[in-house]
Amino acid sequence: MSEVENPPFEDLVNGALEFTIPIAHKMGVRAVEVRRGFAATSVPAEGNGNHFGVMYAGVLFTVAEILGGAITVATFDNAAFYPLVKDLHVFFRKPAKTDVRAEATLSEADIARITEEAAANGKSEFTLRAVVTDADGVVVAETEGLYQLRAHGK
Amino acid sequence: MSEVENPPFEDLVNGALEFTIPIAHKMGVRAVEVRRGFAATSVPAEGNGNHFGVMYAGVLFTVAEILGGAITVATFDNAAFYPLVKDLHVFFRKPAKTDVRAEATLSEADIARITEEAAANGKSEFTLRAVVTDADGVVVAETEGLYQLRAHGK
Repeated sequence: MSEVENPPFEDLVNGALEFTIPIAHKMGVRAVEVRRGFAATSVPAEGNGNHFGVMYAGVLFTVAEILGGAITVATFDNAAFYPLVKDLHVFFRKPAKTDVRAEATLSEADIARITEEAAANGKSEFTLRAVVTDADGVVVAETEGLYQLRAHGK
Repeated sequence: MSEVENPPFEDLVNGALEFTIPIAHKMGVRAVEVRRGFAATSVPAEGNGNHFGVMYAGVLFTVAEILGGAITVATFDNAAFYPLVKDLHVFFRKPAKTDVRAEATLSEADIARITEEAAANGKSEFTLRAVVTDADGVVVAETEGLYQLRAHGK
């Protein structure tokens, strides 16, 4: 069998989002770059504003929260485990008036610990910090989310 | 001029939501009861699920976050002040598989302090704790949001 290159993880996430989280897809949330230990997402200003002309808080929450799922797809064994968000703290730093981009990183040390704990116990918790920036690179929001990687059927 | 009864605040909030926060309106978020110091909102399960068959985290965030605006409408001088959310911490307690209801209360002591500070300084911060329950009354999420009441034009 010839070696086949897998599609990039961002294509997998984007292909699935309409069916996995329709409301996020309706907002226009997209995965921009997804690889082991890293994910970046974006969402347009269009349709996501409030009456002050800035992006609604719930959209900023969503573009950042989705990173937990996206990074899991590219980093852990999806046949065995799925991610859950347990709590998330979002800090609104500046009004967002443009499309925004969110990104988060999981260190190799964290990945090793989570992989080991999940294999041993069927679950493992991890904290993901995300930064959301506007088109000028200004930080508009930051999040700290507590996620759990959990074995299917547990 | 004869005395005219004002429409209930929940009607004001619902009439405005489509234009003030269209994405929340699209989710089906509704104000159920809004009066001085109290607000309750709801959102349907339909269209707001994820691939695990439970309500998406961003929808639970939104139905609770909206309370800060709703309670402000019924409690403070809207001609002079508007609310901003500064940060919000949401705790996901149980999977939500039904329509949900969120509610929050602001004490008379808090209302007095906020009114006084906003009049004196053009702004005042307050914490709003919300509880989100499913159709069986089970707590599915809790939030603690830091809001600011701010004078228009500041």
